[in-house]
Amino acid sequence: MVRVYLSEADHGLKPLLRCLHDELGVRGATVVRGVAGFGGSGVVHRTALVDLSSDLPLVLEFYDRAEAARIAIERIKALVRPDHVVSWRVRIEDG
Amino acid sequence: MVRVYLSEADHGLKPLLRCLHDELGVRGATVVRGVAGFGGSGVVHRTALVDLSSDLPLVLEFYDRAEAARIAIERIKALVRPDHVVSWRVRIEDG
Amino acid sequence: MVRVYLSEADHGLKPLLRCLHDELGVRGATVVRGVAGFGGSGVVHRTALVDLSSDLPLVLEFYDRAEAARIAIERIKALVRPDHVVSWRVRIEDG
Repeated sequence: MVRVYLSEADHGLKPLLRCLHDELGVRGATVVRGVAGFGGSGVVHRTALVDLSSDLPLVLEFYDRAEAARIAIERIKALVRPDHVVSWRVRIEDG
Repeated sequence: MVRVYLSEADHGLKPLLRCLHDELGVRGATVVRGVAGFGGSGVVHRTALVDLSSDLPLVLEFYDRAEAARIAIERIKALVRPDHVVSWRVRIEDG
Repeated sequence: MVRVYLSEADHGLKPLLRCLHDELGVRGATVVRGVAGFGGSGVVHRTALVDLSSDLPLVLEFYDRAEAARIAIERIKALVRPDHVVSWRVRIEDG
């Protein structure tokens, strides 16, 4: 499982999704929008449910076989801020 | 920790929650709605915050002791698409 | 990676964020709001996207080096309900 931390203010989501989908062909990716958080800058972003704030955290996650995930991580490092990618091993249950 | 990937278009969430709650009695479950993503179909779903799109990714997660989680995984496989369940070991901090 | 399960009805989020940010200085934290779930109470909370329900699950996550995360876990136990904190090891990719 690979997780990438983005911010809405970054405008980095679209290029990242495109890279994962078109270039790397990972099997799937999901993006979740946070309602609060703080990051390296130390600013706490908070929002009401229908707030239109555009600097909230975005968390993108995808999973793939270990080798494909490793290749993807090395590739996407160019698109994200340092230390904003974490990964851990998961078991993919076969259907 | 067990994670199940669903889509809003599936209508699979309700039966799954019912199974986890009523039949398996897992200690808790949380469902988060993605704001973007793509899956096996290769389609990228994206939404504005108040979009009423109904084919967004849903990520259901629950955790339990390893043995209970394993039983739950085997049971819910009948309710979800293949390769849409992942799991990993976590430490549950006692209170 | 440390995950804390909260409920909107708890009003425990603000003190927890303040503790993580001001006192513990963890490198970042993200809060995601669930759209459905059930917990120890066995009640299933469900919401439409623009529902104003205020008892939905909140999932707070943060990550840091193992030692800092352990110190943070011990500290925040005073602020959350028992068995509502889980943790697992992740690899932080250097930039």
